[in-house]
Amino acid sequence: MSETVKLTLNEIQDLSLSILTKAGFGPDHAAAITEMLTTCQIDDCQSHGLFRLFMCNDTMKAGKIDGHIAPVVAPSDNAIVRVDARGGMSLLAFRKALPILIEKTRAHGMAAMAINHCFHFSALWPEVEQLSSEGLAAMAMVPSHSWVAPAGGTRGSLGTNPLAFSWPRRGKDPFTFDFATSAFARGEIELYRRAGKPLPEGVAIDKEGNPTTDPQAAMDGAMLTFGSYKGSALSIMIELLAGPLIDDLTSLESMEHAEGRGGAPYHGEIILAFDPAQFSGGRTAENDARAEHLFADIIDQGARLPSQRRFSARARNIARGYVEVAKTLHDDLLVLAEQV
Amino acid sequence: MSETVKLTLNEIQDLSLSILTKAGFGPDHAAAITEMLTTCQIDDCQSHGLFRLFMCNDTMKAGKIDGHIAPVVAPSDNAIVRVDARGGMSLLAFRKALPILIEKTRAHGMAAMAINHCFHFSALWPEVEQLSSEGLAAMAMVPSHSWVAPAGGTRGSLGTNPLAFSWPRRGKDPFTFDFATSAFARGEIELYRRAGKPLPEGVAIDKEGNPTTDPQAAMDGAMLTFGSYKGSALSIMIELLAGPLIDDLTSLESMEHAEGRGGAPYHGEIILAFDPAQFSGGRTAENDARAEHLFADIIDQGARLPSQRRFSARARNIARGYVEVAKTLHDDLLVLAEQV
Repeated sequence: MSETVKLTLNEIQDLSLSILTKAGFGPDHAAAITEMLTTCQIDDCQSHGLFRLFMCNDTMKAGKIDGHIAPVVAPSDNAIVRVDARGGMSLLAFRKALPILIEKTRAHGMAAMAINHCFHFSALWPEVEQLSSEGLAAMAMVPSHSWVAPAGGTRGSLGTNPLAFSWPRRGKDPFTFDFATSAFARGEIELYRRAGKPLPEGVAIDKEGNPTTDPQAAMDGAMLTFGSYKGSALSIMIELLAGPLIDDLTSLESMEHAEGRGGAPYHGEIILAFDPAQFSGGRTAENDARAEHLFADIIDQGARLPSQRRFSARARNIARGYVEVAKTLHDDLLVLAEQV
Repeated sequence: MSETVKLTLNEIQDLSLSILTKAGFGPDHAAAITEMLTTCQIDDCQSHGLFRLFMCNDTMKAGKIDGHIAPVVAPSDNAIVRVDARGGMSLLAFRKALPILIEKTRAHGMAAMAINHCFHFSALWPEVEQLSSEGLAAMAMVPSHSWVAPAGGTRGSLGTNPLAFSWPRRGKDPFTFDFATSAFARGEIELYRRAGKPLPEGVAIDKEGNPTTDPQAAMDGAMLTFGSYKGSALSIMIELLAGPLIDDLTSLESMEHAEGRGGAPYHGEIILAFDPAQFSGGRTAENDARAEHLFADIIDQGARLPSQRRFSARARNIARGYVEVAKTLHDDLLVLAEQV
């Protein structure tokens, strides 16, 4: 970032709440979204911080989201908590069902949260880290829009389908990853297009299904998955578990639902949680040590655990009490705050 | 395969049972291993069929496995069935705990099987397909030996750590994949070495941590994961879920346990199962149709679903009542049958 401005956490929250409220989100949704954006911004995760306020506004403008709707949790005796976002943003639904997911995980040893009928635009790591901070391991998956071709294919069928995972580490930041199963982020292609730069090889195809490094041709065509046929298989698994398994849309259906309008995609989300105390027969201390031995072996050879940059940023930003954001982004947000 | 021999299913089973029994496996273990090898051989999965009898024999010779031990299932009220293989092969433990996993999945909506203290050498797809044939979705993971370097690393820390998944399709073969998170199979490197052929770029490093295409240098060094840092993160997740979560060894510990001897690695395994009826609130027909729409869109563009070659082979081999195996393999097995 060339020129930056410093924002305290209060300033981030005020700016976010102000824009969201004016855009049409009720206080509960605005608070849940603001909490998520702030969490991302504290970690210097610029792509999922304040920048996403534009997408929230676009989603409202697209006219399908309900900014005031209250999510409804379905009562159940089994290990599944189903929460119906009823056409609102996913985050309030997650927040409402989280205590029940934790309770069910402790009761059954493992449990799942299925969020239905939600608009989704957020990073998954803040969600799985809320579970690892409770001493549980967690996995989260969502579809998106069908921008991504399966291995050997010629057009988009799959979403960017992120997979996130977090493992609790006693007294330390958790082991967390959150990656798209597409080879490249959709937003990155747009940045290449604006910069007039060619894409790397192997991340996209044009609308005839041929490999391309031209960003515009890639936007008109499809992205590819990471890791060839293995990444493609993983992406299909995410479609199934976060779509048909939980009675919600695939990325193909989400794309149809949007009818070409912008904003966040509409679909479901699945979060799985595992209680190490029950899986290990109560031997958590021994097994924590076993996991730490693996992490130490990875770090010792000069490799990095995922998310380390985020955790460093978090420690630094919390200590100094402010974050830095690009001045251009901040200026645009001030304009947005006036316009909405 | 140049020259082949035709074997009926009975001939496969007789040959397998004969070798395993002579090698020192009791009737229950020999039957469970034979069932798995036969399932793989019917699908023309040569790498995990009769060929694995050599590994079973090597494992017995390495002196740590118990060929007669009965696995013990721990009683539990939660969604986790823990089965202690007590130093035997994993397959008998899986077979014993499978009905309980299915029952628990139907009772809780989702459930897990943790197999502990097992020697493991088999493909995972026959296991997840036993769950999808019951109408459940399933995922399975195991560590192995620490032959694989993490992204950015210089030496082996991770196993080849396969991930398998199966999704039930009404009246059709399931959607199944089973892939190693290493970029290359360990056995393949050995085949390149024997053939004196260089490896592809990006699959291995030498013992100084530098990229190599020399098979011997790769065997002395480490393999890489598929999909760079994403594949590496996924592999670490598999270590954690199939190791410390279930109170069992990581690939690093499994390698230490083997003390340089050959045969199957010793560690744990985790299998997760999901009941679509409960996750979807009983709307399985609608959601089966939704999944089929995705599969049709993938196939329609000329891409293949994983495992299609296996399913074609299965249909053909079952119809004609025999499988074909390489004559050299068959000859070697006949020699083994005499030697053990």
